[in-house]
Amino acid sequence: MIYGHDPRTGENVGAALPETDRAGVDLTVSAAAAAGAAWRATPAEERAVALESVADALAAHVDELWQLADQETALGEVRLRGEVGRTAGQFRLFAQVIRDGGYLEAIIDHADPSLAPPRPDVRRMKHALPGVVAVFAASNFPFAFSVAGGDTASALAAGCAVVVKAHPGHPNTSERVAKIVREALPYPDLLGLVQGMQAGADLVQHPGVVAAGFTGSVAGGKAIQKLIDEREEPIPFFGELGSVNPVVVLPSAPKKEVATGFAGSLTLGVGQFCTNPGLMFVPEDDELREAIVEAVEGTSGGPMLAERIRDGYLGGIERLGELQLLAEGKPGVGSLAVTPKVFTADLDTFAAKLPHIGEECFGPASIVVTYRDVSDLRPVLERLEGSLTATVHGTEAEEVGDVAEVLGRKAGRLIWNGWPTGVAVCWAMHHGGPWPAATASSTSVGATAIERWLAPTAYQDWPEALLPDELKDGNPLGIPRRVDGRLQA
Amino acid sequence: MIYGHDPRTGENVGAALPETDRAGVDLTVSAAAAAGAAWRATPAEERAVALESVADALAAHVDELWQLADQETALGEVRLRGEVGRTAGQFRLFAQVIRDGGYLEAIIDHADPSLAPPRPDVRRMKHALPGVVAVFAASNFPFAFSVAGGDTASALAAGCAVVVKAHPGHPNTSERVAKIVREALPYPDLLGLVQGMQAGADLVQHPGVVAAGFTGSVAGGKAIQKLIDEREEPIPFFGELGSVNPVVVLPSAPKKEVATGFAGSLTLGVGQFCTNPGLMFVPEDDELREAIVEAVEGTSGGPMLAERIRDGYLGGIERLGELQLLAEGKPGVGSLAVTPKVFTADLDTFAAKLPHIGEECFGPASIVVTYRDVSDLRPVLERLEGSLTATVHGTEAEEVGDVAEVLGRKAGRLIWNGWPTGVAVCWAMHHGGPWPAATASSTSVGATAIERWLAPTAYQDWPEALLPDELKDGNPLGIPRRVDGRLQA
Repeated sequence: MIYGHDPRTGENVGAALPETDRAGVDLTVSAAAAAGAAWRATPAEERAVALESVADALAAHVDELWQLADQETALGEVRLRGEVGRTAGQFRLFAQVIRDGGYLEAIIDHADPSLAPPRPDVRRMKHALPGVVAVFAASNFPFAFSVAGGDTASALAAGCAVVVKAHPGHPNTSERVAKIVREALPYPDLLGLVQGMQAGADLVQHPGVVAAGFTGSVAGGKAIQKLIDEREEPIPFFGELGSVNPVVVLPSAPKKEVATGFAGSLTLGVGQFCTNPGLMFVPEDDELREAIVEAVEGTSGGPMLAERIRDGYLGGIERLGELQLLAEGKPGVGSLAVTPKVFTADLDTFAAKLPHIGEECFGPASIVVTYRDVSDLRPVLERLEGSLTATVHGTEAEEVGDVAEVLGRKAGRLIWNGWPTGVAVCWAMHHGGPWPAATASSTSVGATAIERWLAPTAYQDWPEALLPDELKDGNPLGIPRRVDGRLQA
Repeated sequence: MIYGHDPRTGENVGAALPETDRAGVDLTVSAAAAAGAAWRATPAEERAVALESVADALAAHVDELWQLADQETALGEVRLRGEVGRTAGQFRLFAQVIRDGGYLEAIIDHADPSLAPPRPDVRRMKHALPGVVAVFAASNFPFAFSVAGGDTASALAAGCAVVVKAHPGHPNTSERVAKIVREALPYPDLLGLVQGMQAGADLVQHPGVVAAGFTGSVAGGKAIQKLIDEREEPIPFFGELGSVNPVVVLPSAPKKEVATGFAGSLTLGVGQFCTNPGLMFVPEDDELREAIVEAVEGTSGGPMLAERIRDGYLGGIERLGELQLLAEGKPGVGSLAVTPKVFTADLDTFAAKLPHIGEECFGPASIVVTYRDVSDLRPVLERLEGSLTATVHGTEAEEVGDVAEVLGRKAGRLIWNGWPTGVAVCWAMHHGGPWPAATASSTSVGATAIERWLAPTAYQDWPEALLPDELKDGNPLGIPRRVDGRLQA
């Protein structure tokens, strides 16, 4: 049986929930597949309206939802209300995306009998992957990366059915969200929910599952990849794993703002963000150092989401203890509470301890590495693992030198004078990056997240009557298409 | 040492070529990586001009190239001249693609301080994967899917360097093509070539390699996937493996044309196409049956590309021998020659032998399955493996019923009243399909093949001076972009 736990008290939340056994996983996937067959054939406009109904339903239940999630995660009212809003907003963005139709990448090449060999009429568009998408929910976002999170919203938008493996950190919130979403969908079984670790393994190996999304640790992602590798038919795996999110502070950056911004980003949500700034390169500068110490000492820790996550953090700061402790925040309150800690080293000392010192420590810990000259950074940055983000602080763009080029190969998002925590949900967002930040060149946030659940089909001399409306002459749906080599918006 | 072999005589072609050892692979990848760093930073227009130089160089050497390849493959002058032209054409298409710039999927979302939380300026585009692409050449296309084939052209177009593992079926042709391409490129090391099976394994496990493309057998593809799974950092693997390419002949289809077309497509190039029609469903009809027998008996076999491929074909027709032999062509001439064979079964007999009877037999063999009513086909089609293509012959679009929907989930390209052999190189082509046709939702032919070698980057509040030209205000390169949600062609 599975229980939710209150990270503030360690006590159980709600009643015991049964783990889903293999027969239960099978039933859930089969029901989702049947609903998915109807959903796949549903016109885009109807799918868009359904996504908006889900958004409305989530928003309408925000009072209830934040309180339930707060019991299981201790993330607090402001954050959790905001997260429900963000989660609803993701459904609304995908409604826009599928109404727009550009994501289908429709292409028409008319026949050309003058060529040798003569070219037939060829038309191409993307379709939903034919089957069920498995989504592994994250611990640290009970809404936005969980049952009704980005993967679920984008997969439903694409035209797929979804079965979510709930995160054990918030099983009751997961059940409640699933019920709300199911009631808002035209086919409730489009969203299935399973509970328990073995259920997750059974899910990702189920022959009805055609793709999987995951947000979590490197170890967790590797374990799922291994299960997928054992499948008869391989499936794409979109995992978002670990990220240290390096920050480079240039000499021209304003010291006070950098110090305050860093301490705030580091300790937001007890540091439990995949975009947490775990590594910051700063010029050797006593004033900046003092400002960072003062800002970090002004922060407070708090309870982490679960015992396993707390233990991981304690192990991580033990590893970082090879370096010098620069500053720590005030201890948090609660049975799973931890203290923010910032370590420091000069560039050579840090480089000598790579790669192990450059691995993610999930939680409010970071390393401040001091450098003499910006031009010294390049060889060290080259040795960093891939990250979701890389950030530069400075007032002179030229000062960055060749650092920008290296960071562009090391991270999926480059930020100037900002902080990596906070991922805007918009058309241009990319939330992914080189391994181990992600397992594939794909985003889990923003409009283009829908691409992971699609595959193209080409139609050669296919009769107009059988073509999808998206590819018919005259463009009845008015979507963007590339015709005979020219894009028509 | 590696020798080319003449499939007509079994004799060696050219001098012995050394296998590339591990140090050689390392040198080749390192040189490619260094050239790739410069190439990646080269403006699109210059890359386009370089691709056109490669096309010109290949076309200029066609007389020499077809003769060399014919010695190693016995594919004949007409086919090989055509294939060199197609190969050059692929480079020209990708020059157009990168000049157009739409493949970069540039998106700009301007800052919106009115939102809660305020949205920063976010811009996104795709870039070449930062590193070397490994390409495994195919036996059956010594030009178009080999050293200068589609994967090489699309990867170079994307901005990557390439190292090709030559196919042992045409080692001398491979060396010659590599030399021609290298001389036409601004950085010769952008294309490297390695020889030998162990070199292929070393290549795909090399840390400098960031993606791999493969065209070959299911067994070969699985072996490479296994090597990739052992890597420290996973890389995307774009394999094109096996495909039976089902054809459904509707009762309204003209019998004579279907029979002639089938026999021609089946025996083209001694059946050595991944798009060979290996399975055809026809109505129970004596006239059609007779027409097929007559057409197949009018065909001739020929020498296959290599001993291993010939042996695979002989094993395959032994397996198909569980069914009734319907017709065979005339035996081919040469030491590796084989005979075209067509087997037959009714729908129930065929279905009872699935899945093993539905696996690809590479070469000029096919199964003609007779059905009573189109509506009987669906459950059998549902049980077929994924294919690159699925074809329907008929004069009445409505007659196809629910067959079209099933085929749309089973194949990457749907063809009406045509034959699957022959893949047009154009913007809309999709040459891929569900497993085992391909390992990923990606095409190896056509303009969108470039996508496999790209990954997105987002720029948040990034200074205009540091943004790529593709994302600067005012659109200096004049490429298609989506700005604040609206696509601008």
